[in-house]
Amino acid sequence: MTDPNIPVSAQPRVVVVGCGFGGLRLAQKLADAPVQVVLLDRNNYHTFQPLLYQVATGALEAESIAHPVREIFAKQRNSTYRLCEVQHLDHQRKALKTSIGEISYDYLVLASGSTTNFFGNASAAKNSMQNKSVPDALALRNLLFRNLEQAVLETDPARRQALLTIVVVGGGPTGVELSGTLGEMRQRVLPRAYPELRVSDLKIILVEAGPVLLGHMSKKSQADAGQYMAGFGVEVRLNTSIKKLEDDKAYYSDTDFIPTANLIWAAGVEGVVVPGLPADAVGHHRINVNAWNQVKGFDNIFAIGDVASLVDKDHPKGYPMLAPVAQQQAEQLAHNLQRLLKHEQPSDFSYFDKGTMAIMGRNKAVADLPKGIHFSGFLGWLTWLFVHVLTLIGFRNKAIALIDWTFSYFGSGQALRLVLRAVPGSDSVEAATTKPK
Amino acid sequence: MTDPNIPVSAQPRVVVVGCGFGGLRLAQKLADAPVQVVLLDRNNYHTFQPLLYQVATGALEAESIAHPVREIFAKQRNSTYRLCEVQHLDHQRKALKTSIGEISYDYLVLASGSTTNFFGNASAAKNSMQNKSVPDALALRNLLFRNLEQAVLETDPARRQALLTIVVVGGGPTGVELSGTLGEMRQRVLPRAYPELRVSDLKIILVEAGPVLLGHMSKKSQADAGQYMAGFGVEVRLNTSIKKLEDDKAYYSDTDFIPTANLIWAAGVEGVVVPGLPADAVGHHRINVNAWNQVKGFDNIFAIGDVASLVDKDHPKGYPMLAPVAQQQAEQLAHNLQRLLKHEQPSDFSYFDKGTMAIMGRNKAVADLPKGIHFSGFLGWLTWLFVHVLTLIGFRNKAIALIDWTFSYFGSGQALRLVLRAVPGSDSVEAATTKPK
Repeated sequence: MTDPNIPVSAQPRVVVVGCGFGGLRLAQKLADAPVQVVLLDRNNYHTFQPLLYQVATGALEAESIAHPVREIFAKQRNSTYRLCEVQHLDHQRKALKTSIGEISYDYLVLASGSTTNFFGNASAAKNSMQNKSVPDALALRNLLFRNLEQAVLETDPARRQALLTIVVVGGGPTGVELSGTLGEMRQRVLPRAYPELRVSDLKIILVEAGPVLLGHMSKKSQADAGQYMAGFGVEVRLNTSIKKLEDDKAYYSDTDFIPTANLIWAAGVEGVVVPGLPADAVGHHRINVNAWNQVKGFDNIFAIGDVASLVDKDHPKGYPMLAPVAQQQAEQLAHNLQRLLKHEQPSDFSYFDKGTMAIMGRNKAVADLPKGIHFSGFLGWLTWLFVHVLTLIGFRNKAIALIDWTFSYFGSGQALRLVLRAVPGSDSVEAATTKPK
Repeated sequence: MTDPNIPVSAQPRVVVVGCGFGGLRLAQKLADAPVQVVLLDRNNYHTFQPLLYQVATGALEAESIAHPVREIFAKQRNSTYRLCEVQHLDHQRKALKTSIGEISYDYLVLASGSTTNFFGNASAAKNSMQNKSVPDALALRNLLFRNLEQAVLETDPARRQALLTIVVVGGGPTGVELSGTLGEMRQRVLPRAYPELRVSDLKIILVEAGPVLLGHMSKKSQADAGQYMAGFGVEVRLNTSIKKLEDDKAYYSDTDFIPTANLIWAAGVEGVVVPGLPADAVGHHRINVNAWNQVKGFDNIFAIGDVASLVDKDHPKGYPMLAPVAQQQAEQLAHNLQRLLKHEQPSDFSYFDKGTMAIMGRNKAVADLPKGIHFSGFLGWLTWLFVHVLTLIGFRNKAIALIDWTFSYFGSGQALRLVLRAVPGSDSVEAATTKPK
């Protein structure tokens, strides 16, 4: 099938691959532009990735941090959405090969985001959990709470210890936020819901290859984060890498290991690059772009967000993989595409850094704002709350996240601990979803 | 393993199989009784089954209608919960064989509920969807919204028609509520989110083997339900049974069929009877019990709710499979168990019928209350809302259901249409959840 039922349009077609923060913002900013926008994603929803760790730990339900793409674009008349997997780029024919047929473009914007980087660690790729998507987060929630149920039963001490040890690999924001939330959950949920376990039975270990946590943040934030971790009883092991994961053993040297049945890999991400680009347009799993986010060697192909590597004097390795970078590149590109259509000169990307944040629990967050301003504790937590509530899509999601967080703040912790795939072989999500085609 | 890590107790042990409306209520009512309560369920949550159809149609998220068992019993000191599948009853040894080992009992209460009854229709059992559990509802949501996406692309007219035809089998409350909600969704969501489809493209057909809808309700309610269905454009086919389901064809005679890729089987349920009971204790997939809910031939085994068949002069085929019956039997049994422990005479079950309800959409519900009182329209809808909000477990769930319903009432319809298993072979719930053991 060619152009799978996409409406015919007299206007130039901009195909956007990926509906993350970049693709979404770009498509929205083109609402009034004289173009046809075709938005492709392999999920029918946009995911608010910064809050995935809350879904994984049962603090928020998946629906609050995901929003159907068709709902977002319900009123945008120049846009068409297709659910598909993009498989290959044929830049000579100006077309994408996808799971639903070939889709041609006049302008192509690659906003395909990033995926977990296992740095070649095959056993970790095979045996660890990650948290980059809604299904990942639900699977992680299933694993964590199912292993707690198994731990209650286990009589073999070694296996019990492995079931009761959660190892988080990577001391960046994802790893720190996950460890903190797990630490808080342990203190508040375990004594209440698992009378069979002592709080000290559950070990949470945060492993970081470098010498500090939150390497991208200020020294003050790093120090605060370390204190919060200690307060939660999270064991932090710096300068440590996991080499191999086998039989409930996470090896950090040839012979030394941490026994664990819960390894969460949050050590890094890499861009998702569509096959078909020339080799010199790609480096280190990212697509090389100029200051207009134009892909090296092409007039009509662009890349934004995590998958784009835009190098300038302040960012010799490209901009960090952060939502605000993707959104600002999207806005700039929407502007530039309209200039290009009018044969005007595009303008260069410039980044306004609004600061970075990480939250570890109730009243425990750090924020580095511009001009060296640092918040932590309750103030950091309020800042975090304010920013995240405002940026969730839709009033419903804002309201429900606020309710869940209020409960979590004043109440006894998370109530959303459903294991959707509880007893192997029983009514499972897997069995159920695979039934009819 | 025997008695998998269940605390040793000097008090008699009451093992409750199933944490539906009956098992839950019974365990709660035994909170202050001089017994040890062991509660078994194959899910770690209680499901509020009457609202499953709202999860399936994207009106409520799963977490609002399910509640972790451990959370419910966090403060009840005489109860222990175990996640397991009950496989076999050995009544001579007074023990249950389960997926986590053998569990012995002094008193056993079977509250295992019901499952879909396909009435021997093998092709329907194999190819249709059902809606008896949270994973069922999520799978149904996935199917419905994935088929809409496929319909947008489909060029073969026959396949397109099948993708755009939803057949609901069974005109009882489940089938009527599902059809009504789907009818409303079609009117409100389709024009907004699927500009590629016309509202009239999507067919919803409700098939009932008998001569009326809602056979258990008043003539007035049946007539109102028929009117609401017509208003939603749901096609009702009475005196029609689906014989066979093959290749997107639902045959209602040897040669006549409805083309459909979305067949939802809501035609009936049958009790889930644990193997091991003597043949004369079981009939028609239900367990025969006396007026104390005692299983025929046993002093110390009881059955309540859907799985129990309690026959009296007003109920020659046993009580209907309804939540209030299960709850009232649970209360009576909790009372009787305590009398038995004191060697006092138990008292017979008597049912207080609070009435029955069914909802088909905004302002469209019917309620038959005692003394022949009938509500419909807005008043029926308010009654329904009041009863269901009150009976949801936990303030969080009440609040979130109210928010979702408010949006649904005033807004443009459901926003919770995530397809968690979108592109086959991509990041799917299945792929993700099956990764580590």
